[in-house]
Amino acid sequence: MQPTGYQQLNATFAALADPTRRAILARLASGEATVNELAGPFSMSQPAISKHLKVLERAGLISRGRDAQRRPRRLEAQPLAEASAWLERYREFWEGNFQRLDALLAELQPKPRPQRAKPRPTKPIGDHR
Amino acid sequence: MQPTGYQQLNATFAALADPTRRAILARLASGEATVNELAGPFSMSQPAISKHLKVLERAGLISRGRDAQRRPRRLEAQPLAEASAWLERYREFWEGNFQRLDALLAELQPKPRPQRAKPRPTKPIGDHR
Repeated sequence: MQPTGYQQLNATFAALADPTRRAILARLASGEATVNELAGPFSMSQPAISKHLKVLERAGLISRGRDAQRRPRRLEAQPLAEASAWLERYREFWEGNFQRLDALLAELQPKPRPQRAKPRPTKPIGDHR
Repeated sequence: MQPTGYQQLNATFAALADPTRRAILARLASGEATVNELAGPFSMSQPAISKHLKVLERAGLISRGRDAQRRPRRLEAQPLAEASAWLERYREFWEGNFQRLDALLAELQPKPRPQRAKPRPTKPIGDHR
């Protein structure tokens, strides 16, 4: 049975936490592939690949094609859409961080100051203790 | 030391695979919080929460504030941006899926058919089985 809601997110993120499984998804993005075809580039045993495929299949990230002989695996991207939507909520934070960094860098740029009536000795910015 | 590249993705996705850790990040999105403040709503022991915080901290998803007494935790969204960018590569697939579903639903709608005078347009590439 396929997990739903937060369990789906648990399963999706857990499946994506392994570089071999991410590489398998990347391979399947260019088309269906059998277990043998998938095992090839990874210099991994078939049982090791099968184990990764089982994790991906349980998470609903891959499915098996109709060809009963070859049973090619196919990418199922829907759970990735949900994971992406979850992450999307934090976009303002990472974009905010960039903006804060930009603001800081702009502050650090030396720029001409307006003349003041009483010129003060200038200190380098950030030199406070 | 903070992980880099694919190790960062491993750590980020592994950290996100737990609903309590995702809830902690959601809480921190509304502002810094101490371990006690974080433990409150989860009816979890402080050591249990601390363990989750350690996973989030190792993945670079949270940091500790300067207040030496309270050591408030703060959201660090940058690794989420990288995870989002990884998922983004698959957008065409999940959007493609929606499009195929839309096409299927459109096909299932009963509608008056125009008289056929000319041969139909050729099938889209990739529609093979």
